[in-house]
Amino acid sequence: MSKEKQFVKEITSRDEDSAQWYVDIVRKAELADYSPVRGSMVIRPHGYAIWEGMQAGLDRRIKETGHQNAYFPLFIPESLLNKEAEHVEGFAPEVAWVTQGGTEKLSERLAVRPTSEAIICAMYSKWIQSYRDLPVLINQWANVVRWEMVTRPFLRTTEFLWQEGHTAHRTGEEAQAEVLSMLEVYRDFVERDMAIPVIPGRKSEREKFAGAQATYSIEALMQDGKALQAGTTHNLAQHFAKVFDITYLDEDSQLKYVYQTSWGVSTRLVGALIMVHGDNRGLKLPPKIAPTQVVIVPIAPKKAREIVLAKAQELKGTLARVGLRVHLDDREEYSPGYKFNDWEMRGVPLRLEVGPRDLENHQALLVRRDTGEKIPLPLADLTTALPTLLEQIQEDMLKSAGDFLAVNSFAAATLEELAETIAEKRGFVYAWWCGGEECELAVKERTAATIRNLPLDQEGARERLHSKAKCVHCGKEAKEVAIFARAY
Amino acid sequence: MSKEKQFVKEITSRDEDSAQWYVDIVRKAELADYSPVRGSMVIRPHGYAIWEGMQAGLDRRIKETGHQNAYFPLFIPESLLNKEAEHVEGFAPEVAWVTQGGTEKLSERLAVRPTSEAIICAMYSKWIQSYRDLPVLINQWANVVRWEMVTRPFLRTTEFLWQEGHTAHRTGEEAQAEVLSMLEVYRDFVERDMAIPVIPGRKSEREKFAGAQATYSIEALMQDGKALQAGTTHNLAQHFAKVFDITYLDEDSQLKYVYQTSWGVSTRLVGALIMVHGDNRGLKLPPKIAPTQVVIVPIAPKKAREIVLAKAQELKGTLARVGLRVHLDDREEYSPGYKFNDWEMRGVPLRLEVGPRDLENHQALLVRRDTGEKIPLPLADLTTALPTLLEQIQEDMLKSAGDFLAVNSFAAATLEELAETIAEKRGFVYAWWCGGEECELAVKERTAATIRNLPLDQEGARERLHSKAKCVHCGKEAKEVAIFARAY
Repeated sequence: MSKEKQFVKEITSRDEDSAQWYVDIVRKAELADYSPVRGSMVIRPHGYAIWEGMQAGLDRRIKETGHQNAYFPLFIPESLLNKEAEHVEGFAPEVAWVTQGGTEKLSERLAVRPTSEAIICAMYSKWIQSYRDLPVLINQWANVVRWEMVTRPFLRTTEFLWQEGHTAHRTGEEAQAEVLSMLEVYRDFVERDMAIPVIPGRKSEREKFAGAQATYSIEALMQDGKALQAGTTHNLAQHFAKVFDITYLDEDSQLKYVYQTSWGVSTRLVGALIMVHGDNRGLKLPPKIAPTQVVIVPIAPKKAREIVLAKAQELKGTLARVGLRVHLDDREEYSPGYKFNDWEMRGVPLRLEVGPRDLENHQALLVRRDTGEKIPLPLADLTTALPTLLEQIQEDMLKSAGDFLAVNSFAAATLEELAETIAEKRGFVYAWWCGGEECELAVKERTAATIRNLPLDQEGARERLHSKAKCVHCGKEAKEVAIFARAY
Repeated sequence: MSKEKQFVKEITSRDEDSAQWYVDIVRKAELADYSPVRGSMVIRPHGYAIWEGMQAGLDRRIKETGHQNAYFPLFIPESLLNKEAEHVEGFAPEVAWVTQGGTEKLSERLAVRPTSEAIICAMYSKWIQSYRDLPVLINQWANVVRWEMVTRPFLRTTEFLWQEGHTAHRTGEEAQAEVLSMLEVYRDFVERDMAIPVIPGRKSEREKFAGAQATYSIEALMQDGKALQAGTTHNLAQHFAKVFDITYLDEDSQLKYVYQTSWGVSTRLVGALIMVHGDNRGLKLPPKIAPTQVVIVPIAPKKAREIVLAKAQELKGTLARVGLRVHLDDREEYSPGYKFNDWEMRGVPLRLEVGPRDLENHQALLVRRDTGEKIPLPLADLTTALPTLLEQIQEDMLKSAGDFLAVNSFAAATLEELAETIAEKRGFVYAWWCGGEECELAVKERTAATIRNLPLDQEGARERLHSKAKCVHCGKEAKEVAIFARAY
């Protein structure tokens, strides 16, 4: 049995056990590892480099839309967290508490931030005085902690990394515009950089953020047919402003409460990357966020080694100079076959093989990670061909995930249909919903599917349904179409 | 009284009260603010943007020297922290403890990381098996918590941001080379990007990191004559490897302990920036890390406003296209004088004034923040002249800080001399030291000065001393020259 086969055999097949397949990729691609701290993971260099690539794309967009980064304290005094009633009710069950500092027993417990609304509102109350101070558009990259009972690397961990935006505005309209504009920033980032198609929509009352007036999300579909919430934005209205006393003197000399928003995405997205693009050979990374876009594997019998390596080195330099992220795997102790598998597992979009015969023919062999396609190319063309090829891969990966999403989107007119589809096919199921929480819960109980969101594109959603506007559960008149799915 | 004067008056003069001057700059330049959490500060957008500029310069160097970023858990189980005896003794008094997670009282307390050696060693023990796995060269950007009684923004806070490198090597020589090479990376970064000259050297036994075999530091001199430790690197030898059982199978089939290092710099450096470069008008930022390098202030009577603003907009675009970080202050509600002060306070290296007469003459007026020099320049020359001018400012700021360091470096042959110099002039005082802790303590008791480090450049240090190689305290034979100073 070849080394190659052995290597691949180590991953559980996705069809056999998709949960184990997921964990196998996380471990074998060295994205993350379990730690001695319950529920906390270590993000290993390869996983962290992917996160850095994601951060770069998102941070650029956040700044381009006028936001600035800042940093707020990790600890939140209990009394602050308790100020907004719904907020504390939502988060208290999962807070880690600091009760001792050095040798001193604290008189007031400190929450390790599960999210930063409370501490940020306390500051905004100080900073905001006049309408001239508005809008305040601040983002923070930080770690947060939520005490989870059941955890899975990236998807649900006690500690995770994220960005959280917190803005304050003069009017409710401005706040609502911000919430939708950031949702669009998330959609653009996740689709264009991560090649993951998503459905933007509004969350149901039941699923909204603790303390928000309305929550919006982008929802992605994993290859196992389960949904994953990929980002959320919250319209906080004046809920926090009123309890934290965030007021400004308006042009008309009236003291008014600000309107606020918050929004975030997290390292959870790395999990989406695995589950949307991965296969039985491992991870597949979209070129835009791949830490290494092209890996050069020299294939040389011993006597040709020196000359092939020299050429490979030269190629690496040439490609790096045109801005590609390129790595040369010149490890002597591993066979080319082992290396192929290793880099496929890590998801590098393009492999460039070069051997003595290739050099004679002034060419190299390119192998696409996404399709497996082998493309011989003249060496002289590489600097122009590879950037184009990488763009093509990026596009094709989005298209492929888009096709999957299309094929796995269904419609249901009755609870029976809905339940059958969820049981047999999973996927996104569009159905009319009356807006009642009892119906939402009844569907969940019957199907284990929840409302992912009420798509912003209601018109498009309606077109999928040939049925009348009647709630999928109670049959009463319905105004909106919801997407139901089982979810991570 | 003009608005300008009023604005400046709000900062305490440095000569009058340098501690208050420091805090005034932190607040007025909106670098940071106090928070409702004892000892924790909020890093405001301007302060955070400076930190991001510093991160970029340092992260690039860390990666160029072969290190990769990763992320380890915030929490460290007490039993792990307790493994290395010196380490726990050094850090236990300042640890914040999590004792409750959600509704559950924890059976084992979790330390909020004061530094990450313990948790990282636990992982390295898993990851490192063979000599082929070495070296491991990992860095982490993270928040850490040390329970401090007395705090000052940036300089000493309960929570701060930093990077911490943690490496494992096959031999002690390699580890020592890493420790010195990272010290050089820090020196290069702090001098070239932050324009702060530093002295690299070894810490005394007393001042070394808890658990290290040897600690190295770069020491900077603040304008008030006090020293600030700007970065440290630690040779951990096999201390942690032995208690965390980090072994590898060497080529000779022997199981051996690895040699380790760790190294870090923190947001403390923002404090150094203020205290090395600031003046009574506020902050002065070196161009390389300034979030805004050039601020354009249009100066226009009402009727010329439109035409001047249009030109200013155009200039902004032109300058941005050649890679400058440029901001146009087009606020209508503030006078030019107010804006001058505002941007001086925030430390922007260059101000570009443009008014109707300037436009007629096809020129603009440049004002340097570091020297106050006013330089009229033809508009057509700006794209070539400004990058050069910014480089010049960067150089001049380093030179100016270097001159200050030179003038405030002294030598002392006797304790009397040392005490007098410290009392009258502060600064760095070079003196022979026998290496005995009693002498170190005796000097501290008498002068409040501590040994900052034993400069790596002992030859240069010796040349400053005309006295014989006798310990400044006990008079016994001394082998090394130490730098004494009062310190932050």
